[in-house]
Amino acid sequence: MELPEKLKSAIDGLSKIPGVGQKTAMRQALSLLNWSEEEIKSLSHSISNLTKLNECQKCSMLCDEELCSICSSADRFESQTLCVVESITDCIAIENSNTFSGKYHVLGGVLNPLLGIGPDELGIDNLFNRIKEEDVKTVILAVNPSVEGDATCSYIKQSISDGVEVDRIGFGIPIGGSLEYLDAMTISKALENRKKM
Amino acid sequence: MELPEKLKSAIDGLSKIPGVGQKTAMRQALSLLNWSEEEIKSLSHSISNLTKLNECQKCSMLCDEELCSICSSADRFESQTLCVVESITDCIAIENSNTFSGKYHVLGGVLNPLLGIGPDELGIDNLFNRIKEEDVKTVILAVNPSVEGDATCSYIKQSISDGVEVDRIGFGIPIGGSLEYLDAMTISKALENRKKM
Repeated sequence: MELPEKLKSAIDGLSKIPGVGQKTAMRQALSLLNWSEEEIKSLSHSISNLTKLNECQKCSMLCDEELCSICSSADRFESQTLCVVESITDCIAIENSNTFSGKYHVLGGVLNPLLGIGPDELGIDNLFNRIKEEDVKTVILAVNPSVEGDATCSYIKQSISDGVEVDRIGFGIPIGGSLEYLDAMTISKALENRKKM
Repeated sequence: MELPEKLKSAIDGLSKIPGVGQKTAMRQALSLLNWSEEEIKSLSHSISNLTKLNECQKCSMLCDEELCSICSSADRFESQTLCVVESITDCIAIENSNTFSGKYHVLGGVLNPLLGIGPDELGIDNLFNRIKEEDVKTVILAVNPSVEGDATCSYIKQSISDGVEVDRIGFGIPIGGSLEYLDAMTISKALENRKKM
C-alpha cells in the first residue's frame, strides 16, 4: 500500500543501517510514533551530531574535542607503552577489559595491497612519528590474526628502530574455550606459545 | 571506557528502539560513522519528520495530509464496506494482501476495562458516525482473536443498527499450516467454520 511519504522515508533511512531490514525498519518507525516528540527530536539530534565527532589528532580514536580522553589523560601509568589496534571497536574492547593503562594508536585497518590499502592509506607514518615524539619504549601490536594482519605487524616491526620493544598480543586457547572444538591453527599456536609453569 | 559524549548519546538514543540493545546500538552508531554526512543528516531528518505525521481525520490511519491515501481515493470500489482493524500495522497487512478494496477504520486498540480502555478511549463513536455518514452497508471486523478482541467485536455489533451487515474475519487453519502443529483452539474454530464443498 501507499505509505505516507514521511513514514516511508524514515523506514528507508532506518533500513540502511546494517542488520535492519525493511520489516524491522517498519516496526521501528511505527514504534517511534509512540515516543514523545521530545524523545524523537533527541534521537534525531544525536544521530545528526555523529557528523560532528572528531578523530583524535594523536591516536585516531573518536572524540568530541581535538584529543581523545585517553590521549589527554594524565592517569595512564604506562605512558611509554603504545598499543596498536586495527579499529575503534578493538580499542574499546581492550579498554573495557581494564588491563592496559598505556596509550592507543588506531590504524583504521590493515595493509591490503589487493584493495589498494598501503602504509600511506593507514597513515602509518603518524605511528612512527608518535613513537619518536612520545619516547615510546614498548609497542604492543594488538592486531587480529589474519594474513593481512600478520603482514601489517611485520611491516611495522621492520620499520621501528631497534631501541623500541615490539610485541604482538598472545594467541592461544581463549578462556572458557575447549580444545575439542578449537581449530587446528589455534591449537598449533597454543602449543607454540606454551609457557613454563 | 569513557566514550565521546556525541557517540554515547547516539548509542543511548538508538538503544531505546525496541529490539536494539546497547551492543547493537554501538555497532549501529559506529557503522553510521562510515556514512556520508548527507546520508546521516537525511536519516536524522526523516526521524524527526515522524513527529509531523498526521492521523487521517476519517480512519485514523497515518498520513501526510488531512486524509490518508485510501480515504481520499476514488478507486475504492467497495466504498460501502468498512474494515475495522486494531492497528495501523494490521491495516497495512490487509492492504498488502491486495484482496480488499473498501475503506478502513483503525481503532488503535481493543476494549480493555482492566487497562481503562473503554469505548471513549478508542473513539468508537467516530466509527458509528462514519457508518451513518458514509452509508456503510457492510462492516468487516478484522480484529485479532483474543478475549478483548472478541468483546470489542460484540460491543460494536450490538451498537450498530440492524440495516448494516456486520461480519468478522474467518478463523481456521492458515494456508501452509499443518494440523499436526496447530493448537486445539484453532482446530476447534476450523471445524466450526467448515464449508460445504
